[in-house]
Amino acid sequence: MKKVIGILSGTSVDSVDIVLTGIKERKNKIKIDILGYKEYRFEQSIKDFIMQTSSGRESGVENVCKLNFLIGRYFADKIIDFLQYMKISSKEIYLIGSHGQTVYHFPEDEKICNISVKSTLQLGDPSVIANITGITTVGDFRTADVAVGGNGAPLVPYLDFVMFGSNTKNRLLINIGGISNLTYIRKKANIDGLIAFDTGPGNMLIDYLSMKYLSLPFDKNGATAYKGILNESIFSKILENDKYIFSSPPKSTGREYYNEIFLDEILRKFPKVGKYDALRTFTEYTCFAIYYNFVKYVGEDADEIYVSGGGAENNLIMETLSTYFEKPVRKLDIGGINSSNKEAVLFALLAYQTIKRVPANIKKITGAEKEVILGKVCYAN
Amino acid sequence: MKKVIGILSGTSVDSVDIVLTGIKERKNKIKIDILGYKEYRFEQSIKDFIMQTSSGRESGVENVCKLNFLIGRYFADKIIDFLQYMKISSKEIYLIGSHGQTVYHFPEDEKICNISVKSTLQLGDPSVIANITGITTVGDFRTADVAVGGNGAPLVPYLDFVMFGSNTKNRLLINIGGISNLTYIRKKANIDGLIAFDTGPGNMLIDYLSMKYLSLPFDKNGATAYKGILNESIFSKILENDKYIFSSPPKSTGREYYNEIFLDEILRKFPKVGKYDALRTFTEYTCFAIYYNFVKYVGEDADEIYVSGGGAENNLIMETLSTYFEKPVRKLDIGGINSSNKEAVLFALLAYQTIKRVPANIKKITGAEKEVILGKVCYAN
Repeated sequence: MKKVIGILSGTSVDSVDIVLTGIKERKNKIKIDILGYKEYRFEQSIKDFIMQTSSGRESGVENVCKLNFLIGRYFADKIIDFLQYMKISSKEIYLIGSHGQTVYHFPEDEKICNISVKSTLQLGDPSVIANITGITTVGDFRTADVAVGGNGAPLVPYLDFVMFGSNTKNRLLINIGGISNLTYIRKKANIDGLIAFDTGPGNMLIDYLSMKYLSLPFDKNGATAYKGILNESIFSKILENDKYIFSSPPKSTGREYYNEIFLDEILRKFPKVGKYDALRTFTEYTCFAIYYNFVKYVGEDADEIYVSGGGAENNLIMETLSTYFEKPVRKLDIGGINSSNKEAVLFALLAYQTIKRVPANIKKITGAEKEVILGKVCYAN
Repeated sequence: MKKVIGILSGTSVDSVDIVLTGIKERKNKIKIDILGYKEYRFEQSIKDFIMQTSSGRESGVENVCKLNFLIGRYFADKIIDFLQYMKISSKEIYLIGSHGQTVYHFPEDEKICNISVKSTLQLGDPSVIANITGITTVGDFRTADVAVGGNGAPLVPYLDFVMFGSNTKNRLLINIGGISNLTYIRKKANIDGLIAFDTGPGNMLIDYLSMKYLSLPFDKNGATAYKGILNESIFSKILENDKYIFSSPPKSTGREYYNEIFLDEILRKFPKVGKYDALRTFTEYTCFAIYYNFVKYVGEDADEIYVSGGGAENNLIMETLSTYFEKPVRKLDIGGINSSNKEAVLFALLAYQTIKRVPANIKKITGAEKEVILGKVCYAN
């Protein structure tokens, strides 16, 4: 068994998630044990620096350069803390897989200087993590896929397939981070039978509203949204403005689309709306976007529905999804992989595959021209 | 023998240099054959995009993200062209070592969000190069050294030591790219006996003036500067403003210091100076900065002096250096490694060492706390 750490911070920039996994392989069948997990909330100053740098307003090359090292150091420090918490030595760790922090994601073809460019940018330099922790680190998993024409996302279906395929059930896995994505695994499907894509907003719009109205980073448990009622005019306006949810997979999205500009465009038409109704309406819309995409682009019957990510902690989201799907929607918890640690587990698995030189993008899902070995390997001395 | 490609574009953003090397090793002694070399001048539009993005003016995160992929694709395209020119298949190439393009370099300790950060940023994603060329690529050689407190520069002394150490001669190797650096190898010295650092401006200030007065990217052969005479008032003013040349090694510098702001600060005091005298004076100053640093921080007698980089093509620079040092100053050409291909050879060598997990920063020279394995490995599928 190899001990592999997975680490990431998501598009909602709330926290750094670290998981320690034990990865075994027998006859090409991978088994992952979860040995420990911890979440580290970002200090507000760091969150602010990340948001400023990724928003484009104060995002000069200087800040990008410094933030790349700052996040690398921050991740490394948290890993060192995590190892102490787990009472385990760095020498026992085979590998770290670090996603970093996405600050820009633009997976659309654009001609610049006569060269066709799709691009994505994750910060948190893996060389910094490797050399501070003393543990070989694989990072930057999305660039290779984007290099061969893919969206660089979603990557989580690879983990879904390895861990959650079933011979008897059609499973739908929904992840609600800053952005939402789904993976549908028809029973007995092989990897090419998977359907997966970003469905649209996750907690991102809700979090913006929460900051705007409540000065809180998120609407805990949906408590504020519960007090409001759905405003149908606003709902229709969101639907009118949101081009993304109607586009066909493969597709992926991010803060470049679902941001304050997207939100303000809608809200300025409704200056009198109260905070309760606004939060309620955007929470419902977030769920609708997931459901609509499932019906339109999957169009099958899911036997089991599992939700992971921050959205799974929001009761209103879970209830609303249940209502839309007309069946129970459960918080993910299968074989130790749960709603909180899932994404971190993904990057442990991907790092493991990088070192073994196993391609781990699913080209049908990311839209890539070919399968590639994801990630960059930084050896610790 | 392993065939390894080295590729880079320097701080002067003139061209992409590609070299094909054959690397052999016997009893830990490395031998490098030069099998081919080609220089690709940047199209003006790409140069402009790079300069804008690194100058801080139009340097949003969006441009950084896109430029990283654009340079990666550009490098990959040039490598594919180079392989055709060399009539060699990509399958025969063991490895690519790519420096990328530096767009920001800030190797000074700064507290941000209570975290101590030194940083550097090279663009031209190595995952993009690996997956487009189909050749495993190592890139991003400076970050690991900066992660452990080093300046991430200069790296070239490692190549100097491997290739140019002598049992009978004290050798001084000067490289004049955008920035100038020197390596002094006392005869019979071991790697810890090397002295090396960035001395200050290379062609960078001369190139700015050339663009300003002549609308040309550089003063070919020093032809325009030859027409002028040294303006001593300006020379004194540069000396007064230039803090860098007086700081003690280890040290490194870049466009963040020697830029248009540095230049304008001086020139606006001398509104009447002619272009010939301005170019002459800055050319002489560039040479003085090299000489002054050698005298002050090396203070020994060099038996042989070799110059590489674009500066070696400038007769006035070569003559002026000869006058300062009071001995012949030759354009580098030893064992096939010459003034033009030297830096590209460095990155082929470094990539080779990365794959073998051999540390290649010289900590005394970069100021790092420890020796580290440089670079990030991106496997091609």
